[in-house]
Amino acid sequence: MAVPVPPSLPSSIDLSHHLTTVARSRHPSPLKDIIQYMSQPGMISLAGGLPHPSLFPFTALQASAYPSSTVLDTTSPTVPSKSVTLNVPLHTDESSPYSLSSLLQYSAPAGHRALLAFTKELTERLCNPAYSDYTTLLNNGSTDGWNKVCTLLLEPNDYILVEEQIYPSAQASFIPFGCKSVVIGVDGQGAKADLLEQALRGWDESKGRRPHVMYIVPVGQNPLGSTMRAARRKAIYDVCVKYDVVIVEDDPYCMLQFGEYRLGRPTAPAAQTIDVDTFVNLMEKSFLSIDYQGRVIRLDTFSKTISPGARLGWFACNSMFAERLLRGTEVQTQHPSGFSQWGISGYLEWATNLKEQYRVRRDWMMDALAASFDLVPAETAGVNGALGLVAFAKGGAGSAKPLMSFVPPTAGMFLWCDVYYSSTKPFQRLAASSVSQGADSAADADPEGEFEREFWNTLVAANVLVTPGWYYRPWMGDEYKTVKSRGGRPGVGHFRLAFSLEGKTEIEEGVRRLAEVMHREWARE
Amino acid sequence: MAVPVPPSLPSSIDLSHHLTTVARSRHPSPLKDIIQYMSQPGMISLAGGLPHPSLFPFTALQASAYPSSTVLDTTSPTVPSKSVTLNVPLHTDESSPYSLSSLLQYSAPAGHRALLAFTKELTERLCNPAYSDYTTLLNNGSTDGWNKVCTLLLEPNDYILVEEQIYPSAQASFIPFGCKSVVIGVDGQGAKADLLEQALRGWDESKGRRPHVMYIVPVGQNPLGSTMRAARRKAIYDVCVKYDVVIVEDDPYCMLQFGEYRLGRPTAPAAQTIDVDTFVNLMEKSFLSIDYQGRVIRLDTFSKTISPGARLGWFACNSMFAERLLRGTEVQTQHPSGFSQWGISGYLEWATNLKEQYRVRRDWMMDALAASFDLVPAETAGVNGALGLVAFAKGGAGSAKPLMSFVPPTAGMFLWCDVYYSSTKPFQRLAASSVSQGADSAADADPEGEFEREFWNTLVAANVLVTPGWYYRPWMGDEYKTVKSRGGRPGVGHFRLAFSLEGKTEIEEGVRRLAEVMHREWARE
Repeated sequence: MAVPVPPSLPSSIDLSHHLTTVARSRHPSPLKDIIQYMSQPGMISLAGGLPHPSLFPFTALQASAYPSSTVLDTTSPTVPSKSVTLNVPLHTDESSPYSLSSLLQYSAPAGHRALLAFTKELTERLCNPAYSDYTTLLNNGSTDGWNKVCTLLLEPNDYILVEEQIYPSAQASFIPFGCKSVVIGVDGQGAKADLLEQALRGWDESKGRRPHVMYIVPVGQNPLGSTMRAARRKAIYDVCVKYDVVIVEDDPYCMLQFGEYRLGRPTAPAAQTIDVDTFVNLMEKSFLSIDYQGRVIRLDTFSKTISPGARLGWFACNSMFAERLLRGTEVQTQHPSGFSQWGISGYLEWATNLKEQYRVRRDWMMDALAASFDLVPAETAGVNGALGLVAFAKGGAGSAKPLMSFVPPTAGMFLWCDVYYSSTKPFQRLAASSVSQGADSAADADPEGEFEREFWNTLVAANVLVTPGWYYRPWMGDEYKTVKSRGGRPGVGHFRLAFSLEGKTEIEEGVRRLAEVMHREWARE
Repeated sequence: MAVPVPPSLPSSIDLSHHLTTVARSRHPSPLKDIIQYMSQPGMISLAGGLPHPSLFPFTALQASAYPSSTVLDTTSPTVPSKSVTLNVPLHTDESSPYSLSSLLQYSAPAGHRALLAFTKELTERLCNPAYSDYTTLLNNGSTDGWNKVCTLLLEPNDYILVEEQIYPSAQASFIPFGCKSVVIGVDGQGAKADLLEQALRGWDESKGRRPHVMYIVPVGQNPLGSTMRAARRKAIYDVCVKYDVVIVEDDPYCMLQFGEYRLGRPTAPAAQTIDVDTFVNLMEKSFLSIDYQGRVIRLDTFSKTISPGARLGWFACNSMFAERLLRGTEVQTQHPSGFSQWGISGYLEWATNLKEQYRVRRDWMMDALAASFDLVPAETAGVNGALGLVAFAKGGAGSAKPLMSFVPPTAGMFLWCDVYYSSTKPFQRLAASSVSQGADSAADADPEGEFEREFWNTLVAANVLVTPGWYYRPWMGDEYKTVKSRGGRPGVGHFRLAFSLEGKTEIEEGVRRLAEVMHREWARE
């Protein structure tokens, strides 16, 4: 699987000026120095403070798992009857590159050798980096990975470039340090390069230093569901080169790329054959594939493919950043659980199979929406700013009352809806009354926010739960609390629908309830 | 096992002024709010972004382990023939409170319910806190735990109270933030209360704010090997109350308390019966047992008893600190690996058994030292400042040339040696020459440091590896690089011997080599 790196690839450039004072100030532990002496022939070491392996209570570990070639039965998600057994023997033998005695012991902060090598191979094959000296390093999943990157790059009170909506836990890592978001507007592919350039070019240095880090979820963005294609990535990357910005590519959904939804065509059941090469060829490629300078830090994870509970992920980045992240790892987490670090085989087969499951789930949701709403392509719907498909009440296609619009996701777990509050009479009254209250209170008024809370409560009363748009609003500071102050679209709200967890029946019924509430609310006088 | 809390115990006092700005600024994720709605009867949730459990590849997990009542064979640490099998079924059943489907999924940051309850019970039984509103919270082992406590309590450039020697990774967590150590002198029990009081009373505010955090490893201190008894703990605690200091009790070796070494008496083999109550009764009790204000944060871990690779530990502290640590956990690590969080049964039986193994290993090392040196109790050896036992060359007991002294540890994995460089001619010449170079260079001269490096290299050349004293020197700032500037004992160096990892034969041979080098070096003219 290892592909030799062509000798023509450039090395990464020096980006050490992006490091925080804390990241620069980390020193290797003196305990690491001594390890070289331990392997000196004839040496007796009274130095290492490790427990003798005979003092661990475990003798063997075994897991049963589906064979990676299993085609899961989407319609009835029961346990397949076939399973394979993975053995971790106490000591390494021909059946396993992992030994229990090494998984139980303190281990290298970078990760167990076999797994670390696997992440490097996977990065090489799937991301095909455009420079030579990249490396990988394990972490405890992307929450941990992103937190470590924040310590690596963000000084207190820094500004950071983010997309129009952000996963709340991602910003919860940096908000307590006084960091604020600079929001880059999006379309159906995520952040737009021209808006990024505009934000950086016009940066007002009196606010603080120009942002030097951009956080992007390029595939199946949470909550936007958007996936960025190659040309957009290149345009974003070029702006980041011009303004010396480090790109943090958080890509948990990269293995869940399942392709387009075609309105009006019957949806197919999960494929019965597994074609890894086709899957890999059709994937949108990592920012690493265009990164000739080494300014991308990629966060990858096994959470969506194997198990979130394993808390296991990895960084792929230039070796300078990786070395500083390793120094951080030594004192932040030491290393991921040894119990999580074993038994990766047939990973790509499994993922190829798995993404079909998510494709079918996406189709369940889209089909349910098509059944409960009139869906019209945005190009013909005549709704200003709409992308993808516009939803009208049944029989109301093309009317002056669009309910919502969305871009059917090609990856991930989520569908993001722009909801047209401005088509409702109650919202129109709310907006008018806040304007009539005069200039001062009008500046504080947030009719979109107010209506969104009411509407969400109405959905809860109808027994359908969605996540409301305000969960994902980037923190820009106290003075940006209203749609108006943020420069958002007037009269538009948002919610996120997840198709990862519920079954087909529940998704259909949930969407039916959603449609019922919207039809009723949008018909109110 | 749960002991009801007597109603007379006080509540913790308000210690929120100890929190850092970052710790105060953390907010709960909005995603947590929505969980209550998910359990509303009839609700269909399109909100939760979790993978459907049928999309995880595992179906069962199984481990083989020694029965907790196994008496390990110290002399020949092979795998006992008996083992028990622990099953984690896909769904909870009567055989296990842990289900694989919940361990594989995202889970509560505080930890899986059954394990969290177990840590609370264990804290209640072993630590018997002196206030009512304490709680426990899982973490990814004590490295992670301590790092989280640093974020909770230490502002950049704070001073922190530490013992005379410190585990390097512990200080590597705070040094990059500009924090410096205030070193409290020790005796055979660790930090001395009168020296702590002196450091706090005489604090010079012009250096920075008075230290408000003390980091203590009270049992089997690494590297000192010291264990603090009840009266000392009380005296330290009272000083911390007086000066409003939070005590962080890092106690990884608490289950490895194995009792005194008696010089000249034959050492016993590992006990063949397991008496948990006696073990628990003889343990030195946690600072929590005297903590009537809630100012102790205790770090506990499964690393030394079950497996360091599991990266699993827990905090025990007041509920205000715990809530802030939980907010940190959400963005720092999310939760420990689910693969680590299962199968705790017979823990105290296993630990009672295990500590005997460490007792026997301590005895191996002490017996080897007694065979290679003349050991004389410090009270009669006439060596200024010596504690415990003083080692002379064979046949040289009571001479003017002590080689080293040490307090035989009653817990943990380590023996700390004070080494009398001043008894050697080469050191005496080195010290004299640095004095004769005049006042300026004398201030920079560090003959102890210089000699320690040379001596350590001589040991390496003789194929015996110890960790040198300088590894464990607390960082006080650039101006404290010499023994003299730190107020250390002139002419005394240190090394640490570990008895946790090597076998009996290797320990004996290692000590023999050590003695041979010391005899030769101390005889040099």
